Amino acid sequence: MENSNSSIEGNNLRVRKLELSDKSKGFLELLRQLTVCDSVSDKEFEDRFKEISMYGDDHVICVIEDEISGKIISSGSVFIEKKFIRKCGKVAHIEDVVVDAGSRGTQLGKKIVGFLADHARSMGCYKVILDCSDENKVFYEKCGFKKKEIQMVKYFV
Amino acid sequence: MENSNSSIEGNNLRVRKLELSDKSKGFLELLRQLTVCDSVSDKEFEDRFKEISMYGDDHVICVIEDEISGKIISSGSVFIEKKFIRKCGKVAHIEDVVVDAGSRGTQLGKKIVGFLADHARSMGCYKVILDCSDENKVFYEKCGFKKKEIQMVKYFV
Repeated sequence: MENSNSSIEGNNLRVRKLELSDKSKGFLELLRQLTVCDSVSDKEFEDRFKEISMYGDDHVICVIEDEISGKIISSGSVFIEKKFIRKCGKVAHIEDVVVDAGSRGTQLGKKIVGFLADHARSMGCYKVILDCSDENKVFYEKCGFKKKEIQMVKYFV
Repeated sequence: MENSNSSIEGNNLRVRKLELSDKSKGFLELLRQLTVCDSVSDKEFEDRFKEISMYGDDHVICVIEDEISGKIISSGSVFIEKKFIRKCGKVAHIEDVVVDAGSRGTQLGKKIVGFLADHARSMGCYKVILDCSDENKVFYEKCGFKKKEIQMVKYFV
């Protein structure tokens, strides 16, 4: 039986890099499920897109698009930090992983995190790290992560 | 009474950005007090220094030099992540904060973290985050941070 989730059930969704046109495919609305994400103008979006693109493979945002609805239903980002420790090693930081509420339980999150971790490995990073809530710990353990330290934060606004 | 720590006691040490010549002032030996930090050639150091410098104010490594001994006795880094959430907001990530074992208890760590957090604020970040061990939680609380999430890690090597 076909429905709007048929492509998800068929497990044929591919992860690809964010494109400028994804603004009109609900990318910001998806991020709003994660945290505060006010609307921005097309110009502001494009400027930020270009700024991030300048980093090339050192900062990648990936998405999964539901080809039936044309909406972005999952996303995540990774950036590569260059260090002096570990023989001038590199560490990947995963941020802003989100799956649309209507598509959860379909392994999309795992697919996104797998894509980002594979990218980190291919870039020669010795580890990939992320911060998450206690509730999401089990999900990341299923993705091959282990709890290590604690996250501290200082807000300016 | 004068000793090798007089400048620390005099509290006149300034935080400055990392310079290429800091390799010969014990910068890597200092990082070795933090984690694994194998020796690298001058060429490898220079290449990594240049790569990081290309990010300009988006990736800053700062140090404190003991002007009497000529050694780097404290260091830390911060890089700015550009996001789409929070109206194309920016988040600063502090990494690799270290104070030489012989200079601890002299507020150098607080000085380094303050410098990095001030940089983050001046760059328009809405928050600054870092990961630390449970033992270092109290230190970062004194620097104005609060515990938020947990850190997850996946090692490739």
